[in-house]
Amino acid sequence: MPKLLLDQEKCLRNIEKMAGKAKRNSLSFRPHCKTHQSAEIANWFRDFDISALTVSSFPMARYFAEAGWKDILVAFPFHPGEMESLISISEKCKLSILVDSPAALPFLNHIPREIGYYIDIDTGYCRTGVKAENPDLIEQIIVKASSNPHLEFRGFYCHAGHSYKASSRKELDDIHGKALGDLEHLKMQLTQYSPKVLYGDTPSCSIQEEFGEIDEITPGNFVFYDLVQHTLGACTLEEIAVAMECPVAGRYPAGERIVIHGGAVHFSKESLLLDGASVFGQLVQAGEEGWLTATEKRYLTSISQEHGVIEQCGDLIREVNIGDKLLFLPVHSCLTSNLMREYQTLDGKSIATLNL
Amino acid sequence: MPKLLLDQEKCLRNIEKMAGKAKRNSLSFRPHCKTHQSAEIANWFRDFDISALTVSSFPMARYFAEAGWKDILVAFPFHPGEMESLISISEKCKLSILVDSPAALPFLNHIPREIGYYIDIDTGYCRTGVKAENPDLIEQIIVKASSNPHLEFRGFYCHAGHSYKASSRKELDDIHGKALGDLEHLKMQLTQYSPKVLYGDTPSCSIQEEFGEIDEITPGNFVFYDLVQHTLGACTLEEIAVAMECPVAGRYPAGERIVIHGGAVHFSKESLLLDGASVFGQLVQAGEEGWLTATEKRYLTSISQEHGVIEQCGDLIREVNIGDKLLFLPVHSCLTSNLMREYQTLDGKSIATLNL
Repeated sequence: MPKLLLDQEKCLRNIEKMAGKAKRNSLSFRPHCKTHQSAEIANWFRDFDISALTVSSFPMARYFAEAGWKDILVAFPFHPGEMESLISISEKCKLSILVDSPAALPFLNHIPREIGYYIDIDTGYCRTGVKAENPDLIEQIIVKASSNPHLEFRGFYCHAGHSYKASSRKELDDIHGKALGDLEHLKMQLTQYSPKVLYGDTPSCSIQEEFGEIDEITPGNFVFYDLVQHTLGACTLEEIAVAMECPVAGRYPAGERIVIHGGAVHFSKESLLLDGASVFGQLVQAGEEGWLTATEKRYLTSISQEHGVIEQCGDLIREVNIGDKLLFLPVHSCLTSNLMREYQTLDGKSIATLNL
Repeated sequence: MPKLLLDQEKCLRNIEKMAGKAKRNSLSFRPHCKTHQSAEIANWFRDFDISALTVSSFPMARYFAEAGWKDILVAFPFHPGEMESLISISEKCKLSILVDSPAALPFLNHIPREIGYYIDIDTGYCRTGVKAENPDLIEQIIVKASSNPHLEFRGFYCHAGHSYKASSRKELDDIHGKALGDLEHLKMQLTQYSPKVLYGDTPSCSIQEEFGEIDEITPGNFVFYDLVQHTLGACTLEEIAVAMECPVAGRYPAGERIVIHGGAVHFSKESLLLDGASVFGQLVQAGEEGWLTATEKRYLTSISQEHGVIEQCGDLIREVNIGDKLLFLPVHSCLTSNLMREYQTLDGKSIATLNL
């Protein structure tokens, strides 16, 4: 079966680097755990004085609360189907949620104890959030929520996820610049409510050096990085801390094709356009410990449920046999980790994740 | 949290229809379980005299063997990393594997008891398998394997998966016609080995009425069907037996956008080009029981890890509120089921799957 290898040293270096950047910029750091989904990996952050986490769902919040974390933000717009989870998890830790509409507030009328909320701000991603250009609506939410004695306004949350669609450094800088400007403006306009400003997609937090009026960063993917992040310039290939280990299941010299055991239920169906092809993983070479960037670029170019195919594999076919293990950097480590649900460190130790 | 609803009646009708077609054509029926991955759903096949299953991995083989199935084919090229599983599962049931190269045979030299094998035949899919045009290589495998007293040749297996890429009925017919011709020819040429011929992707088994020299069909997806199958003409929208139920998390009238809780970790990242857009699910209307095809076509057109977005949602935004539940037909039910790992029937019963 395919395995998800984790180079713990690379992962720790990624954590150290991001924690260092936060410290240099006097930013709090509330890492997002949706990428690793592992209590053991979350514990590695404690050495860097991290005491607060971001998650993307209530099952994740429960898992990390049960693992002893005392300050958790569920960075997903609250909807009433999560009320039971909200109440029971808030017994265990200081819990915050996202709100982006006055319509979400009545559902919170009867919460039995303090819940914090951040207003989700849209600076151009166009997924969730109140448009930054609409401070009136933002204030309307704050005023309306203030009638609820258990609901505490904590600030603004902004995920500038359109950075993932940027095609140049200039575009990344523009997205970041617009977000900083918008958030600074809002913070000033609504200063009487003392908002804390949370920010942070991995590309912006990795690439940028100026954080303006931001108070806290919340990136998640940086813990492992992946091919998408590398393409955006957020990491080097060498910083990618996870690789899929997949056995060779078939060799087809006439078709110049190698088939591995490793498909959509392992990698996910996330693809990336690289060197003109839609790819699902990039081959790396096994090193004495871990893996090295391969000298020739080779990609998984087709996957089905359990199969992965290296098409136009060239000379590689002469070097591999059925049963050999090949290593691949994933396109999107969040989705690959979510499917694999277990890591194996280079010294063979298994690391568990939340088991939904 | 999103739920995967299962309309058990539709599912049973899909099973009955395929079992009926097999019977009419004097075909054995060995349904593939990779779509549902559920012992409870596999049991529904017993009413149609089904006693043999197809699976795509050894963990699935173990799960169904432990659920009492006595004849299981692992339809994935055997590689030596699976040796321990092969041996232990073969204690519990009659086990068959796929082989498509003489190079795979030495790994099987020391199996302690009888294992059956089918030779994987490639009639044009170009994923795994020996090219149908290469009977010499096929015979070479049979002859070489015959020196292993525990390895029993059972026949040919063909998954004409290029049917999924067909863009017309004519193309589907050509793919099927070529496969039938190839397999008939091989069966005749190698008649002294009495090969049984296994065949069956869901599109071909659903659409075609002629099965030539095929002995047994092995489709899997038909149990639920999905938008991909509908696009291929393999099912009606009404025959799709699963739908995702997702709460509305956000409404953005200015952006004509509805955001649901339901993303890539629920639907998968499989997309389909429909009406000019890349879609991840199609909205259906909740009916008194189950769901009805919606009068207007609306699609999930963007997903991230936990979020799904209905862009250009038009009037729909006036009909929905935060917390309302929307229903969507999945693009690829195999991947959605694999992520959700649990079904809820229309009367609220939970059906479990293999928990990896």
